[in-house]
Amino acid sequence: MTKKSHPDSSEDKKARTSPLPARREFLRQGAVLAGLAAASGVSGAPIAHAAKLAVPDSNLAMGDAIPEVDYGMPIEFEKHVKRRRSDVFVNKQNFSDWSMTPLQHQTGIVTPNGLFFERHHNGVARIDPEKHRLVIHGLVERPLVFTMSDLMRYPSISRFYFMECSGNGLTDWAKPLSATVQQSHGLLACAQWTGIPLAWLLDEAGVKPQGKWVMIEGADGSGHLRSIPIEKAMDDLLLAYGQNGEMLRAEQGYPLRAFLPGWEGNTCVKWLRRVKVVDQPDYVRGETARYTDPMPNGKWRKFSMVMECKSVITSPSGGMTLKGPGHHEIQGFAWSGNGKITNVDVTIDGGRTWREAQLEEPVLDKCLTRFRYRWVWDGGPAKIASRAVDSTGYVQPNVEEIAKVREIVGFVQHHNGIFPWAITQAGEVKNAIA
Amino acid sequence: MTKKSHPDSSEDKKARTSPLPARREFLRQGAVLAGLAAASGVSGAPIAHAAKLAVPDSNLAMGDAIPEVDYGMPIEFEKHVKRRRSDVFVNKQNFSDWSMTPLQHQTGIVTPNGLFFERHHNGVARIDPEKHRLVIHGLVERPLVFTMSDLMRYPSISRFYFMECSGNGLTDWAKPLSATVQQSHGLLACAQWTGIPLAWLLDEAGVKPQGKWVMIEGADGSGHLRSIPIEKAMDDLLLAYGQNGEMLRAEQGYPLRAFLPGWEGNTCVKWLRRVKVVDQPDYVRGETARYTDPMPNGKWRKFSMVMECKSVITSPSGGMTLKGPGHHEIQGFAWSGNGKITNVDVTIDGGRTWREAQLEEPVLDKCLTRFRYRWVWDGGPAKIASRAVDSTGYVQPNVEEIAKVREIVGFVQHHNGIFPWAITQAGEVKNAIA
Repeated sequence: MTKKSHPDSSEDKKARTSPLPARREFLRQGAVLAGLAAASGVSGAPIAHAAKLAVPDSNLAMGDAIPEVDYGMPIEFEKHVKRRRSDVFVNKQNFSDWSMTPLQHQTGIVTPNGLFFERHHNGVARIDPEKHRLVIHGLVERPLVFTMSDLMRYPSISRFYFMECSGNGLTDWAKPLSATVQQSHGLLACAQWTGIPLAWLLDEAGVKPQGKWVMIEGADGSGHLRSIPIEKAMDDLLLAYGQNGEMLRAEQGYPLRAFLPGWEGNTCVKWLRRVKVVDQPDYVRGETARYTDPMPNGKWRKFSMVMECKSVITSPSGGMTLKGPGHHEIQGFAWSGNGKITNVDVTIDGGRTWREAQLEEPVLDKCLTRFRYRWVWDGGPAKIASRAVDSTGYVQPNVEEIAKVREIVGFVQHHNGIFPWAITQAGEVKNAIA
Repeated sequence: MTKKSHPDSSEDKKARTSPLPARREFLRQGAVLAGLAAASGVSGAPIAHAAKLAVPDSNLAMGDAIPEVDYGMPIEFEKHVKRRRSDVFVNKQNFSDWSMTPLQHQTGIVTPNGLFFERHHNGVARIDPEKHRLVIHGLVERPLVFTMSDLMRYPSISRFYFMECSGNGLTDWAKPLSATVQQSHGLLACAQWTGIPLAWLLDEAGVKPQGKWVMIEGADGSGHLRSIPIEKAMDDLLLAYGQNGEMLRAEQGYPLRAFLPGWEGNTCVKWLRRVKVVDQPDYVRGETARYTDPMPNGKWRKFSMVMECKSVITSPSGGMTLKGPGHHEIQGFAWSGNGKITNVDVTIDGGRTWREAQLEEPVLDKCLTRFRYRWVWDGGPAKIASRAVDSTGYVQPNVEEIAKVREIVGFVQHHNGIFPWAITQAGEVKNAIA
């Protein structure tokens, strides 16, 4: 999906504007055009008369009939677009494992449910919604239990939010281990989530004054459990049952999960069965031995659950090949757990200079934002990267800057560093992290 | 998915607000609560102690392992959520046919690709993208031909837009033939579409001054063809290859379709292979014998391609049963081919009085907008409906008002009338058109 062409990126916001000036500029590059045509076949090539083009076979045949009842699937020509397990970490089993979103193939900002990354600690539970219960108990006036039918009868809200695993990028701090953006950044996706604010149910249960945290637990084999400050629980923690227009998939926690906008995916407990109001965190394995960050003073930082501002170029990205010098569109995603994206800059010279990219509407709070930048590649070696800024003014750092305030040893979590791709003279795009 | 509960609908825009006042009001209705509990089991029921609830089996078992490579599917418990062929029109074949979106089950505004309605004139063509070509010819300076690879290298834009078939609702003008909202309104769906504005390519080809229309043709067995005014072609006609984050499905025109924001689905030619610039429309079967509207003067109106402002209540809707009097949330969709939705009103007394519903953000141009209204049902017969207003000031009419300016005979197109559901004392919801 590398791009040859070229309209000025300001057209992003006004599609009605013609790219003609850019096209003229392009046409002036006669040699380049000829080279491209030779390398990649005609592109908007002149034809003497359309009648020379044969009517395709599909115009002369019956198509496939419509089934009586159907849930559709992608066409066979797109079978390479799949979520995949890691090719860097080779697990002996695949129960405490993950699969990754093919970001390099994603159009727009919504990740299809069938391609949404997974992270499980004991495989995928398959739960009958008729039997599922949600309990709210602990430091509350009135412990309550809900069936799914109860919950579905409440009003619901729907919001577009990204989700990112805190381990996203952990293989690529110091060495370029991942070949593609699916492997380096694919523990990331975005959806419209539908559900009920937990605050509504906590108000019904009546939180006692000493209730300062909620412990949320899943009904899976790992009994996955996290402690969440009561402020977040009352702010925007969503009890989600819908994702992208339909009920959650099994691998996303059907029939009910926690969704904490902007917080690490690990806190968004799937197959949610229990919310216990407590006076302090539980300090379970998932918040002490795991999901913590080593610091320069030898301590480990706990409860660093907000996913900070980050971005990555998805096109061109690792494994792609540019089909010759000239106009290319650079595209990628930016996101922040602290608010909206306000700015993305792009470098083509390894960080010496930065130019402003265009953001595509809608730009939403704690949601993937697509950026684009029109680049004329001169055919020499290049190093491209993006740098995002969010509505708090936070600027995405590079790895060196992160290493000044944290201890970067091995496969640590929370890698939101600037991520470069190197482009060779042959047009090959490769992971160029330090 | 009928709703019992009750937060004030102003909470839609501020999820942090507790529904406690509404809950208190609800709790005051002791008899009603008791009735509900008896009818539908406990709902947020008090429990003596959570320990009384058994640990579910899923907590004690291994889940399903993650496949190496995967494209996920819904869980088996949701197998009733499918697109379906019409149960009103029983076709002898299923090539020139349609399937319908299960709107009553949709969460949020994005329709999953697997549930997106279909309408084909000769079945589903399956086209190898390597072999597909798009030709631009006719009244242009430079006839051009593009491979898919050429097109994919252009910059792209992504936009959220609804799509509606002009035949949506044609079975239900005068008699309540459809049992569910899937059957009455399911030729409607919404997606984020990605592609290239046709204007960019027309500028490259150079439209001659006498070019006033474009004829767009598909590569399917019907050679589906429509004539589009050059103004629309240059304004926002999108050459779409992406839908909801991935490449188009076969049944949506893979690898390339036309998408005309706000215009009837029939103009959004699938498997697009040809754009011919012409000086007048072709007056083909699809714009003379079909897709026209009979008028009171005996003439037929042609080229009425904009889908006018419309709305429908999806919950509660036909086939559902309210589980007793009390608080229910009314939800539905509103949309307009002429702009944004600015207002939706809801009636519960068959149109005698109207109350303002809440709109859920984001409210986007030519996109589905979700509305909600909190209703306390007194248990008596009721007749509910919604009425939308768009940014042009146009108010959705009822069938009687449409009949004053058009001839409503049989199964005619473009039914954007107010659509009522009757609710019986038993809580059964039924189609109540005319």
